[in-house]
Amino acid sequence: MSRSPTSVRIVEVGPRDGLQNEKAIIPTAAKIELIDRLSRTGLRSIEATSFVSPKWVPQLADAAEVFAGIDKRDGISYPVLVPNETGYARAREAGAREVAVFTAASEAFNRRNTNAGIDESLQRFAPVLERAAADGVKVRGYVSTVLGCPYQGAVPLAEVVRVAKALHAMGCYEVSLGDTIGVGTPAKAREMLRAVATEVPMPALAVHFHDTWGQALANLLACLEEGVAVVDAAVSGAGGCPYAKGASGNVASEDVVYMLHGMGIRTGVDLDLLADTGRWLSALLGRDTGSKAGKALAASG
Amino acid sequence: MSRSPTSVRIVEVGPRDGLQNEKAIIPTAAKIELIDRLSRTGLRSIEATSFVSPKWVPQLADAAEVFAGIDKRDGISYPVLVPNETGYARAREAGAREVAVFTAASEAFNRRNTNAGIDESLQRFAPVLERAAADGVKVRGYVSTVLGCPYQGAVPLAEVVRVAKALHAMGCYEVSLGDTIGVGTPAKAREMLRAVATEVPMPALAVHFHDTWGQALANLLACLEEGVAVVDAAVSGAGGCPYAKGASGNVASEDVVYMLHGMGIRTGVDLDLLADTGRWLSALLGRDTGSKAGKALAASG
Repeated sequence: MSRSPTSVRIVEVGPRDGLQNEKAIIPTAAKIELIDRLSRTGLRSIEATSFVSPKWVPQLADAAEVFAGIDKRDGISYPVLVPNETGYARAREAGAREVAVFTAASEAFNRRNTNAGIDESLQRFAPVLERAAADGVKVRGYVSTVLGCPYQGAVPLAEVVRVAKALHAMGCYEVSLGDTIGVGTPAKAREMLRAVATEVPMPALAVHFHDTWGQALANLLACLEEGVAVVDAAVSGAGGCPYAKGASGNVASEDVVYMLHGMGIRTGVDLDLLADTGRWLSALLGRDTGSKAGKALAASG
Repeated sequence: MSRSPTSVRIVEVGPRDGLQNEKAIIPTAAKIELIDRLSRTGLRSIEATSFVSPKWVPQLADAAEVFAGIDKRDGISYPVLVPNETGYARAREAGAREVAVFTAASEAFNRRNTNAGIDESLQRFAPVLERAAADGVKVRGYVSTVLGCPYQGAVPLAEVVRVAKALHAMGCYEVSLGDTIGVGTPAKAREMLRAVATEVPMPALAVHFHDTWGQALANLLACLEEGVAVVDAAVSGAGGCPYAKGASGNVASEDVVYMLHGMGIRTGVDLDLLADTGRWLSALLGRDTGSKAGKALAASG
């Protein structure tokens, strides 16, 4: 418990990780409004969109328009996903000042997800990291499937450590460790984070949990106790996992903030405004919010 | 972490705490089938029903028929709720060999819930405990609202400790500490359990979390780390809180078992059979299961 942080930075990934899996076509204006609403909640990091090829992720084909349209506030970073140099160039053209690259700890997953092996994807990132350094652009790195893979099953811990270390060594200021299919449990999440932290300093690590098996907040608690202080989450629990029918999405930002505040850990986020935004998004998507705290707040308000 | 138990006993409360808040009329035969299905999962404690006055809980007015109808297996305890001596007599007549009494740490809640103050309710239990001791009947004690009350808000920790200690001193072999409205967060849950454990031995304590704010598994993890080894849960997350619109029910047994097994903590429960039962119950109630692990298992199966 003594290692738990006194404040946590939430990286809100709803506009990207949440919306990229939606079947419905979401108007560009609504995406912009979502980000602008999130900007008013006190969040400091909002992943805005992805400059992956529209062939792969048609849902975010309007990335440039979205990025141009949002009201970029001082003190808030709006990272965008880029798969390679082409994506980086598009992101820069749109005005992005922080980008994120992504690979996996599972070779099988990375091949299916990006049509490249892990090492090949790292090689693709090298020129992105070089250009970003020259441009003064911050780069975040994602490692997927750190606690399990839908294709290969178990993922060797050593691979998670190796890939996270490589991203950090290449210049990623922060590496986000993602349980993409939400299969992890607290002891395994803790063991994974401890292992990575032997090679990458804890302040450069973030955790990213999906709530597919209902374990996200418990896993997060275990990782907080290890000292992690950056947490990815998506308002209203937006986003599904395209690889598992019935799977739920990211851990809901509202539930994370409620837990952290209840533990006396600061986030700077106004929970009421965040929950309002979650309900607005859920209404837009025509579904119940995936945030229990959001639901409870609505019932008690 | 070192204090985490190596095995946990799940007290399945779905047939009672889950069904008592249902609006739909559930046939007696279905209640019996639910318990019989649960008996085949490896659970060792299944709270079967409540001998509270049918005026208060009409949903469980068939308590005697349910208790008579279930296939009582060796090695499984089937406690039933009793509010007073009258309820105890009815429970005994039906053949109950374990009962549970209940009060709250919040005076306001207890008055609304049972029309009696806390001390008055403890006085009511005294003759029940005496008769139970003479009859060789085990008595479990519940303390509600240990982390917050829908009427009075904050609940003094000293009251939680006092009430838990009183129940234990009166002869309850186990005291279950309930976050009835699911408002707790891990640090508070841990602090509460630690405080109670200074007066009641940890092996005589259980925790009972509702997932209203999405915190149940995280709270449970914090309490496991303190050494608690008995956990109340309801299959499919059955049960709502009648005091908060939109509130979800008990923590889902499936999610608890998935977490515990993932941490190498034994429960003796077959998760697949439990999840089957959860889906059977959800279909009966005409709704989606409230268990994310149950949903994920169905999708992957």
